[in-house]
Parts: sequence; C-alpha cells; structure tokens
Amino acid sequence: MKKPIGIFDSGVGGLTVYKSIRARFPEEDLIYFGDTARVPYGPKSPNTIIEYSLQNARFLLQQNIKILIVACNTSSSVALPHLRKISQIPIIGVIEPGAENAVLLTKNGKVGVIGTDGTIRSQAYTKAMHDIKPDIEVTGKSCPLFVPVVEEGWHQHPVARAIAEEYLAEFKGKDIDTLVLGCTHYPLLKGIIKDILGNEVTLVDSAETIASYLQRMLPLEQDGIIGRDEFYVSDNEAKFARISSQILGREIAFLKRVRLFESWFIDED
Amino acid sequence: MKKPIGIFDSGVGGLTVYKSIRARFPEEDLIYFGDTARVPYGPKSPNTIIEYSLQNARFLLQQNIKILIVACNTSSSVALPHLRKISQIPIIGVIEPGAENAVLLTKNGKVGVIGTDGTIRSQAYTKAMHDIKPDIEVTGKSCPLFVPVVEEGWHQHPVARAIAEEYLAEFKGKDIDTLVLGCTHYPLLKGIIKDILGNEVTLVDSAETIASYLQRMLPLEQDGIIGRDEFYVSDNEAKFARISSQILGREIAFLKRVRLFESWFIDED
Repeated sequence: MKKPIGIFDSGVGGLTVYKSIRARFPEEDLIYFGDTARVPYGPKSPNTIIEYSLQNARFLLQQNIKILIVACNTSSSVALPHLRKISQIPIIGVIEPGAENAVLLTKNGKVGVIGTDGTIRSQAYTKAMHDIKPDIEVTGKSCPLFVPVVEEGWHQHPVARAIAEEYLAEFKGKDIDTLVLGCTHYPLLKGIIKDILGNEVTLVDSAETIASYLQRMLPLEQDGIIGRDEFYVSDNEAKFARISSQILGREIAFLKRVRLFESWFIDED
Repeated sequence: MKKPIGIFDSGVGGLTVYKSIRARFPEEDLIYFGDTARVPYGPKSPNTIIEYSLQNARFLLQQNIKILIVACNTSSSVALPHLRKISQIPIIGVIEPGAENAVLLTKNGKVGVIGTDGTIRSQAYTKAMHDIKPDIEVTGKSCPLFVPVVEEGWHQHPVARAIAEEYLAEFKGKDIDTLVLGCTHYPLLKGIIKDILGNEVTLVDSAETIASYLQRMLPLEQDGIIGRDEFYVSDNEAKFARISSQILGREIAFLKRVRLFESWFIDED
C-alpha cells in the first residue's frame, strides 16, 4: 500500500502546485485539501493562520501521508515550525523553493517579492533568501486586492491592470531583475505584470519550482500503478470542481467536503 | 440586571449597525461579535453561512441576550429561519428594515439592490419587498470586489470608481429611483455611487433604518444607567480596535478574542 503525499492550501490556488507535482510524480497517490470555507488566509493574524494550518495538517496526517506540502504562501510563511512540532514526516512549504530559485536567477542581486499581507509581513522570503545569500537586496510589497480580482475572474480586466500599476510602482527605481510571485493566485496575472515591469524582470512561480525541489528529497514511486487523487474542500464543492477543471484541464473524480466540529470560547491568553 | 442586546456580523462592517443602535438606545447593554477570522461571508455557500451564523448566535445566546441583531446582510439573507429554530428570543436581520424602507422611498416602484454573491443569489431583498408590495420591480447585482476595496482603504481611489462603474452599469436603462446598499461595507462607497447614478437615485442604508425598526418592537430601557458595551472578535483585535475607533469616533474599552474548538471531519451528507 502506497502512502500518499498530502497538499493543503487556503483554497483553489494550490491546485497549480498539485498540477506540477502530479506531472512530475505520476505514480504517487496525492491528497489535496483546500480550505475554501475560510479563504483568504492573507489578512488573518499569525495565530489564526497557525491554528488553521494545524487543523488542515492534522486532517491530512489522519490520511497517513508520508510527506506534507504546504502550497499556501501565507501558511508557509508563518506556520511551518508549528507544523513540524506535530509530526516527524517531511513538511515542505513554497517559500524555500521560490527563494532558492530567485537567488539562482537574479544577476544583479536585487529581488522583488509580492504576496499577501501575511506573507510580506512575515518577511519569510527575505529571510529564506538571506539564508542562502546574505547580500541579496529584497523589496517586498503586499498586494491584497490581487486575490479577490483573480477570484472575480478579472485577471485580464483593465481594473486588474490599474491595481497592478499602483502596487508595482513600489519597485520603481529599485532596479530589480527578478520578481517572486509569492501567492498561488498570482501566476494568472503574469501577463499584466510582465507588461508593467518589462521583459528584463524574470518572474519566479514557486508552483513550478516546488516539484523539482520535492524530487531531490523523495525517491520516485515506481510501482507501475498510476497514482490516485483525492480532493477535499471545506466549502463550495461545485465551484471548486469548476475552477479545478479549468486549471487542470480535466474533471476530478474524487471530491468531498469536510467540516469542523466547533464552538466558540473566549480566549483568555 | 439588564439583559443585553446581541449583534453579530462577519467582521467590522456591522459596527455601523451597532453605532446607530447605540445612538438610539443609550441605556441598553450591547454585545457585539465580529467573525473577523472568517470574513468575508459573501462567497461562502449557504450551508457554511448557516453553520457559522449558528455558532455566532450560540455564543451570544450564552451571554443571556434578550434580542439578537444579525448585522451581516449575507447571514440575514440565508440564516434567519435556522437561527429562529435555536432560540425563542426575537431575531432581527438587516433585510426587512432595508426592504421596507426601499418600498416606502421608491416613487416609480423600481428598486436596485447591490450586495455580496450570497445576498444577491438568495434573492432575500426581492422576496422581502414583494411581501410588502408584490409589483415592485427589483434588479439585483452582486459586487464582490466592493468589500476588499473598502478593506484596502481604497473607497475613494480611482480603482473603486472603475469597479463601481462596471458593476453599476447593470442598472443602466432600468430606471431605478432607489438603490439598497445591501452590505454593511457599502455606505463607505456612497460618494462614488452617487456620482455614477446621479442624485435622482435614493440610497438606502439599512444600518440607519434598523434602529427605528428595533424601536417598534423593544420598550426603551430607562433605568438611568448608561449601557455597557462588550466587543468580541475571532481575530485581529488590534485591527478591529483601529477600524472601530474610526467608525465610532472613540476608543472601545472592552474587546476580547474568542476562539473555536475545532477539528475537521468528512461530511457524508
């Protein structure tokens, strides 16, 4: 019996991560969890992001996974050390692969990072790049309206361009040659971002780099049996099915909703 | 011992409702709960909105409230019948007062409604207006980007105007003379909406009308003791304190975070 790889995200964005892993590991069993009820994670406090990430991880750990991929940038930014306390299996976020790739690609040592409030406030990309190369100059900018604009399907709309122009003005005069797309929704805005920043700026999409990162730590499953896929979401199964078929180019066969047992209590910390 | 009035909202928007109730009922004790961890409610499925609304109501019912105000339009649209099953106390949403006011104000019987996806899909305003006057012509339009734009503080930004122009184009040629602002965030966009639709369209802000609606069903508390205020949120206390002082024009003294006991389970419905 193969043990599956678990992947969680705050919603549908992590499907780009799932897709690149599925392409590279055709014989692995994959279980994806999207917390579509509580998306977005970007504006939440670190405490809440950690709490939700732990719940998501516990759900996947119950499915007996051998490795956990945190596809959400916001979760990866603040929750990894906490997740590593509850399990011995390898846990990989999207920050390190993206940071590593940016450091490899930059020629002038000047890198920009865009992400949610939570990701940018955490400075996780900056720290990860400095761990590899301490003199990299990093400029971060949070872009809170990018996720709702993509969710609205307006990623090619003039409004998306107006918002992007305002946010990306942060990088004027900073001479960056590499920009990390620090949120799984942002690759859909690549066209507009390229138009504004010009072709001399290389865009780093961590969904594309995480699969090769994973390959280094995981011996490839080769039992000749095509891997199974299971998808779980916390809300809006129909919407998830629709968006996932657009992103993946095929229908998903196994999709279930999961719910929480819950009741409020006053936090006396 | 006075029994308090309970108010819940998906986040900070319901503070406009709190403010108008506080102004009208100075001697009532008020308890406000904002589900700032799980905001926004607009894109969630009816099942999840009902589940979250029940949790919020249960928390306030534990505080021994005598009346429950659902300040969130999305919750009011789908959860009221479910909330009324778990308690005998009066439960008031923002839909009826807004609908009633729109029917009173319109002269040509043509009313527009803007709101979140959840609110517009539910057709709650249309049904409530038709219950009062069956021949009212109602045109609804969901405006999912309005909440994130207001949360970003861009309610006077050219981007907000561009988004509003796109959404409000729905009402061109519909000859509406009244527009219901069916979301507690929207009053902040009044200026832009008035500019686009013109002064001949009357805007209905249900936060302003709910207090007078409440006055009809509740004998005014007159014990000579100024009412207490308690605020509870599920996340981001500091951000809530900052925004509430802007909306209310004063600091709030009592603010606590509440959390949920929770773990995921697979929904076999």
